[in-house]
Amino acid sequence: LADETLLQPDEINAYFIEVFPAAAATGVRCESIGDRAATARWTFDEAQLRPGRYISGPTMFMLADTALWFAAFSVIGIESMAVTSEMSIRFLRPAQDGNLMASASVDSVSKRRIVGTIRLWVEGAPDRIVALAQGSYAIPAQKA
Amino acid sequence: LADETLLQPDEINAYFIEVFPAAAATGVRCESIGDRAATARWTFDEAQLRPGRYISGPTMFMLADTALWFAAFSVIGIESMAVTSEMSIRFLRPAQDGNLMASASVDSVSKRRIVGTIRLWVEGAPDRIVALAQGSYAIPAQKA
Amino acid sequence: LADETLLQPDEINAYFIEVFPAAAATGVRCESIGDRAATARWTFDEAQLRPGRYISGPTMFMLADTALWFAAFSVIGIESMAVTSEMSIRFLRPAQDGNLMASASVDSVSKRRIVGTIRLWVEGAPDRIVALAQGSYAIPAQKA
Amino acid sequence: LADETLLQPDEINAYFIEVFPAAAATGVRCESIGDRAATARWTFDEAQLRPGRYISGPTMFMLADTALWFAAFSVIGIESMAVTSEMSIRFLRPAQDGNLMASASVDSVSKRRIVGTIRLWVEGAPDRIVALAQGSYAIPAQKA
Repeated sequence: LADETLLQPDEINAYFIEVFPAAAATGVRCESIGDRAATARWTFDEAQLRPGRYISGPTMFMLADTALWFAAFSVIGIESMAVTSEMSIRFLRPAQDGNLMASASVDSVSKRRIVGTIRLWVEGAPDRIVALAQGSYAIPAQKA
Repeated sequence: LADETLLQPDEINAYFIEVFPAAAATGVRCESIGDRAATARWTFDEAQLRPGRYISGPTMFMLADTALWFAAFSVIGIESMAVTSEMSIRFLRPAQDGNLMASASVDSVSKRRIVGTIRLWVEGAPDRIVALAQGSYAIPAQKA
Repeated sequence: LADETLLQPDEINAYFIEVFPAAAATGVRCESIGDRAATARWTFDEAQLRPGRYISGPTMFMLADTALWFAAFSVIGIESMAVTSEMSIRFLRPAQDGNLMASASVDSVSKRRIVGTIRLWVEGAPDRIVALAQGSYAIPAQKA
Repeated sequence: LADETLLQPDEINAYFIEVFPAAAATGVRCESIGDRAATARWTFDEAQLRPGRYISGPTMFMLADTALWFAAFSVIGIESMAVTSEMSIRFLRPAQDGNLMASASVDSVSKRRIVGTIRLWVEGAPDRIVALAQGSYAIPAQKA
């Protein structure tokens, strides 16, 4: 019964599509949400590829950033208006021919900052990490 | 006369549009190209904004990444197929209501790696940096 | 019996002290070593503190870098001469009054690059992450 | 005459040695200080080298971090107690047999954050960048 109160992917996606329509139009959705963790998927889109049919670096960054944002929802709620403060990303292997997946974990929460780590792979090959990122979301000061 | 042999923005943009149509469709273009440096512009697009009319973080990352790639062209040529190896980006201020500009400088060139720094601002306000990035492009090994 | 062939912390520390005496003089040691993972400890040293008795940022960076290097040993062996290519680090909380611990995991191994994530805490408080890092070690080309 | 009011390297070094003795014992000093910029030097120390007589990565990080801190002094004053929030560093070439130099520029100042870029080289070879870094200092909230 406690589960009924947990944030669900459908709820996140409905909010995402309604309030962030441009971000949702990229094809990203929340796949799962847990305690300080989330998984996101970018649905493969021929129109966004690079020569050689590679998924682009900026697409990977966008998915990593969004996955950590979803994971932050599990900590501070869906309407927190947290914004990315900084992120570093490493591109490890070509990503081709499939949906792109990202799992984000929140490693630290302080009053004004959420920091986490994100791993990306092509759906079906979770052991072949294609990019790895780490970054910070700034939590806005509460208004009294 | 030597200038005639230098890479020009028009040449870069023609190549970009032809070979990387998905990247060019984002609205990024090369604005200027120099010795180990380039400036790129993202033309303001209402359809890409976040609530509050903010330019998104992934849009800033995409422009930073592309600007450094253009700057790398001035060192290793336009058909080098260099790929981003890693990049870190800091988001400093909201970016709103204007074209986004990025100037990239190549700080180091070695056999297999180009490293540079990128500053971003909203056109017309070059003293208000909205994001700052630094990253590496990997130079593919030459085929004999 | 297979375990007898695995790299052990004592072996790493003996190598570290003999071949890298300046690094070993910092007070860092390998605490445990696993499959693509390692834990390292920096023994608290009054002489290295900042005002307020804080453990310094460069000390945290040094421990993070060394922990990932130890973890890389589990993949490519102890005499590989891998060198740090890049690293990003976030400082999350003050670290005070205790040994500093770092656990490093190798997230990706390719021909020329090992990438991993490192978490740091003060011994006894593993749930209070004080710094979080991610970085790449370059693997030297094999000589024929 | 206005210059008499500007912060001078001697003043920074005296403060550094008195208040941060452990950091000053590393051999770092402020070499020059300007408007949103500073240069720092690490005096070559045989005892800190790696095999092959290389200057270590953590030594480079430490110098980069300190140089940006000195540059921050020119913006927010010497007693501001700003602390590093995050930093990324790229190691580009071996650094050997000389003093290590770092020039830091402050690229952005906001209410709570100073962001800058740091270039490192071995004294006498300023065109051969050995490491490149970028990072943020957090400015403590003013007490009323």
